[in-house]
Amino acid sequence: MSVGLKQPEKINPVAGVKLSATHAGLRKTNAADLLLIELAAGSRVAVTLTKNLFCAAPIIVVQEHIKCNPPRYLIINAGNANAGTGNKGLLDAKECCRYLSESTGVQEREILPFSTGVIGKPLDVKKIKVAIPALLQALEADAWLKAARAIMTTDTLPKAISRSVRTGDTVITITGIAKGAGMICPNMATMLSFIATDADIEQTELETLHKKLVAASFNRISVDGDTSTNDACVCISTAQKEKIYPGTPLWQEFEQAMLEVYQHLAQAIIRDGEGAGKFITIKVINGHTETDCEAVARAVAHSPLVKTALFASDANWGRILAAVGRAGVRLDIDQVKMTINDVLIFYNGQLADDYTEASGSAAVAQDEIVIEISLGCGVAEYLMWTTDLGHEYVRINAEYRT
Amino acid sequence: MSVGLKQPEKINPVAGVKLSATHAGLRKTNAADLLLIELAAGSRVAVTLTKNLFCAAPIIVVQEHIKCNPPRYLIINAGNANAGTGNKGLLDAKECCRYLSESTGVQEREILPFSTGVIGKPLDVKKIKVAIPALLQALEADAWLKAARAIMTTDTLPKAISRSVRTGDTVITITGIAKGAGMICPNMATMLSFIATDADIEQTELETLHKKLVAASFNRISVDGDTSTNDACVCISTAQKEKIYPGTPLWQEFEQAMLEVYQHLAQAIIRDGEGAGKFITIKVINGHTETDCEAVARAVAHSPLVKTALFASDANWGRILAAVGRAGVRLDIDQVKMTINDVLIFYNGQLADDYTEASGSAAVAQDEIVIEISLGCGVAEYLMWTTDLGHEYVRINAEYRT
Repeated sequence: MSVGLKQPEKINPVAGVKLSATHAGLRKTNAADLLLIELAAGSRVAVTLTKNLFCAAPIIVVQEHIKCNPPRYLIINAGNANAGTGNKGLLDAKECCRYLSESTGVQEREILPFSTGVIGKPLDVKKIKVAIPALLQALEADAWLKAARAIMTTDTLPKAISRSVRTGDTVITITGIAKGAGMICPNMATMLSFIATDADIEQTELETLHKKLVAASFNRISVDGDTSTNDACVCISTAQKEKIYPGTPLWQEFEQAMLEVYQHLAQAIIRDGEGAGKFITIKVINGHTETDCEAVARAVAHSPLVKTALFASDANWGRILAAVGRAGVRLDIDQVKMTINDVLIFYNGQLADDYTEASGSAAVAQDEIVIEISLGCGVAEYLMWTTDLGHEYVRINAEYRT
Repeated sequence: MSVGLKQPEKINPVAGVKLSATHAGLRKTNAADLLLIELAAGSRVAVTLTKNLFCAAPIIVVQEHIKCNPPRYLIINAGNANAGTGNKGLLDAKECCRYLSESTGVQEREILPFSTGVIGKPLDVKKIKVAIPALLQALEADAWLKAARAIMTTDTLPKAISRSVRTGDTVITITGIAKGAGMICPNMATMLSFIATDADIEQTELETLHKKLVAASFNRISVDGDTSTNDACVCISTAQKEKIYPGTPLWQEFEQAMLEVYQHLAQAIIRDGEGAGKFITIKVINGHTETDCEAVARAVAHSPLVKTALFASDANWGRILAAVGRAGVRLDIDQVKMTINDVLIFYNGQLADDYTEASGSAAVAQDEIVIEISLGCGVAEYLMWTTDLGHEYVRINAEYRT
């Protein structure tokens, strides 16, 4: 089940990026579970990694490698997170890099490994090594969709999008893929995302832009408030095409296109969130500070009571207000105003005069719900996206390993 | 469904406390929904109230009244929270007090009103007023169990307990009742609890003791991380019997008995938590500070992923570690050690050598689960109680108003 999520439309190759995917046998089904991405020499990469202290072994390797040379290969497996695997896990992740290094002639530290799947199982490195020669053979530019499928875990649909920016005769392409779909919380969800452009962006500018875009996309989604051990978002500039300088009109257009890619992928993760039946936008406006607005948005987004009510299409606005009230933000409740899909619910410390159970129920019966909460004390705002919480979430997470 | 919760055993009256309950028609079923408690003149009362800014109207009235004279009457209704009802709700709560004041001759400010139930519906004050004369007639010392039943909402069983302390020929009684069972989070759950003793405790000592006991009981329970608008815990000393002074052996015995009452009631709320299938104790030990230990305990207790795994009796320890890792506490993961019901799971940054899936599964298959997490960097500790998260929780909370 997913909310308003469709099969990706035409996904365009990015000059300087080749991909291949195969079934190496790391997961139970016979879908592809191993992805190799090759980057042209001279590519630049910015990464955002999980802040979870129990981060997976590959995350530790990426932290080390990214400090050295720009990466040339990314190797990603699904089905096994290689997390909670101690020193053995670290050696396993490194062994994958070592073997790929031998097979390609690039240095080990020019390879970034990523894993997603079950925590605490030893990684079957042998299967990965066996699969590598064929993966190297099969590398092609037009395999983004195949790549999006290879990194899926509980996702029901692949997540991919392309945008382009035209400058003179040149078409700059941006293509990104992502996977969700549970353990989703801001500051990195259980998600992997790889976004590449063939535009030529300087390293420091790429990092600044990436950070800004992650804050406006992946760090604003929440399924269950859990931060994964393996999250990573990677932004690549292959520098095969036009150089783009910040502050120019072209940069603005480029940044906008990049933002669309990031936000589409972040929202796609929520739309395909485990057991998601509704896509919920929480918009907190007129706050004193953005931090206040964010605290309120997160309190609402993480409330199981709010989420179960929305699952049941119950306009139980009291639970939303209760979440607002415990967010730890100073506010005058008589100034708080709340609408759900533009139906005015709460105003002046009480239920709106013309509110009826019927209008409230009609509003929450939609698949796409916008909850707007005005704190009435400033001009700051914060917006985030989440899902409802229903039986499907419980079923998927209770049966995940069975 | 509840976990290891039984019908209360013999509940003893407390000298100086009389109670009566009736069905006033504030809820759909025809169970009692209105409770009156009369306290002897000279009683002392300490209260802990919700910190939710959207607190219910009666909470605001209690905040005002408690500053003045010691209370003589408590009037509690179930079925309607009188929250999110604005100024009208405040007038309604006050009207109940005014009417009871007229009927009894005590001052309005000597009356404390409490409500629990659905948020955002106007309180039917007329029904309450109609019921008051008969309630006053029916007051009796031996009605604690009836009282415990009258305040139930989604509770499946009444929650009540008595303890006694003997000093010479005098028996000091402590009796408490409580209701849960959803929107349960530390710093006041959706809970009401009334605990009375006939011991003579000075006002300031009562307040200090009450605060200490709440911190060791009700503030350590969590069902869903939601803090209610109506929570209140009331501690009463009717001063009808022996005076007890802090620092004496008798005080120690008394404090221990009080702690048992508080903890029994707090745990009973969890055992009867909405949809609870398991009673889970989270014990974080060997931390640097208690604050660190508490942060880790709360991260685990609030994780829907941990709770759905426990619901499914799945020893998915990786989710527990992931919660530990994102608790925002500095720790060396190689020092972290985890046991579930004494089965050693994680140690030295990896799965314990002799851990097997079978031993883990056997541990989480129990109804009562103790997760012990040693942070390995100090001597501080924190303990809390929570439930699993299953279909029953979703069902109850999705259908709450239907």
